[in-house]
Amino acid sequence: MKIQGKAYTSIWVEQKTITAPAVVHIIDQRWLPHRFVIETLNNVAEVATAIRDMHLRGAPLIGAAAGFGMYYAVLEAMQADDYEGYIEAAFAKLYNTRPTAVNLRWALQRQKEAIASVMTPEEKKDIALKTALDIRSLEEENCRQIGLQGLPIIEALATNKPGETINILTHCNAGWLACVDYGTATAPIYAAHDRGIPIHVWVDETRPRNQGARLTAWELQQHGVPHTVITDNAGGHLMQHGEVDMVLVGSDRTTRCGDVANKIGTYLKALAANDNGVAFYVALPSSTFDFSIRD
Amino acid sequence: MKIQGKAYTSIWVEQKTITAPAVVHIIDQRWLPHRFVIETLNNVAEVATAIRDMHLRGAPLIGAAAGFGMYYAVLEAMQADDYEGYIEAAFAKLYNTRPTAVNLRWALQRQKEAIASVMTPEEKKDIALKTALDIRSLEEENCRQIGLQGLPIIEALATNKPGETINILTHCNAGWLACVDYGTATAPIYAAHDRGIPIHVWVDETRPRNQGARLTAWELQQHGVPHTVITDNAGGHLMQHGEVDMVLVGSDRTTRCGDVANKIGTYLKALAANDNGVAFYVALPSSTFDFSIRD
Repeated sequence: MKIQGKAYTSIWVEQKTITAPAVVHIIDQRWLPHRFVIETLNNVAEVATAIRDMHLRGAPLIGAAAGFGMYYAVLEAMQADDYEGYIEAAFAKLYNTRPTAVNLRWALQRQKEAIASVMTPEEKKDIALKTALDIRSLEEENCRQIGLQGLPIIEALATNKPGETINILTHCNAGWLACVDYGTATAPIYAAHDRGIPIHVWVDETRPRNQGARLTAWELQQHGVPHTVITDNAGGHLMQHGEVDMVLVGSDRTTRCGDVANKIGTYLKALAANDNGVAFYVALPSSTFDFSIRD
Repeated sequence: MKIQGKAYTSIWVEQKTITAPAVVHIIDQRWLPHRFVIETLNNVAEVATAIRDMHLRGAPLIGAAAGFGMYYAVLEAMQADDYEGYIEAAFAKLYNTRPTAVNLRWALQRQKEAIASVMTPEEKKDIALKTALDIRSLEEENCRQIGLQGLPIIEALATNKPGETINILTHCNAGWLACVDYGTATAPIYAAHDRGIPIHVWVDETRPRNQGARLTAWELQQHGVPHTVITDNAGGHLMQHGEVDMVLVGSDRTTRCGDVANKIGTYLKALAANDNGVAFYVALPSSTFDFSIRD
């Protein structure tokens, strides 16, 4: 989506030539909304630090970053004494950066299998880069598709309120900063806004780390979507007074039966939506499913 | 309750001699928890500023302060050209300081009637001071009684969990800082703690003004009651995991049928308590009833 009128994604690679190593760039989200900082990640250690210390966050983006981390692992292993041991250690290092995001585990496993599927270091390097780019593209495409899936829901609300603004409440940042582009919860919002449907977003500030106030509000503002930051306490009151047409949130982890674990406070908003007959949607890519959890 | 081991109330008067004018002192709550500041209020204007700019807050305390404001109004009216006009203007000034607290209206009305019930300025001065002191004593006694009413509820919880800590969640500050002493929601907590029942309080930080984090945590800490400040988002999760034995909050205004309006976010905690079978109590004095609201 756009930052100061220019299209960005939250993670991208640069290659000087077709054979040169790829270099990973991210938006260092710790400084938002006050400063827009692009950080270059040059090796496994820097990718691990970026994930662990939340330079980047959001389940899909963590998965994409971990994919590039494994690409660097292969590059570095080629210089190491113990090739296999180096790859294993890098896998473990990246695996332990964050406890909740299931995408992290999923992306690392996919890379591990891809790297094991070919024989030579050169082939492993190529397949690791290709797999990392595929994971990134998949997350991006997932989000684009979520936008297309969600759009008719918002269009239907707009049809029932012709000419009126559709008020959508969201919690935390399930925006494009948490993904590669579009976002999960925000994808239908951006899709509807770009098609000219009048949208206004109630942005929960999302204590304790304020991802709503710091990140969601910033990205909506950069893209030009009308919004208001509210305290997490205010959502129930707004629903009681008919000021919310739908709630739209993301998922950190989704169980086999469709229950979702998401940022603390999501549950309270679900209870309020239920109590007031407000539609409550969770926008999630399949990479958030954890089939080991039954319910 | 105690501050650094010394007993305080949140508003008190000082008279140099029995015939000297009474002088009102409050704890200026704007500086808590970082500084403990006592402010002297010397006239109607200072009382109005203290209420409007939240040097003091909490429905019962606002009522008590307004009572003393009317006492100053009578003192000042004796020096004014238009005695009745001055009293009326002071009443209006105090009435318009805060929109929600029904106690403010109630205390002012009671003072107006008391002042009108006697003839001479000297009698009016005496009855205004007596009425202000009576309102203060009534709020204090109300809270003490709330503590005695609530104590058996906590004792019953303790009986069902012998030797275990009783976890009570509260929202905002319905503590003694909001009243004259004891508090409303905190009165049963202090009563149980003082009788040796092991209590732990989950203190909602209470965005946007953080009265929980700033005031409730401070007064519990000063009195030695174990507690933990949590984000407003966390309460539902704690209830889902059996970490809350009861929810205990105050009321800004209570309707004829017993519905309560209280700090933003109270509703979300009530929904979560209902969803998890956790007992939810509102501790309120009769001065918060507004019989003009049916439901």
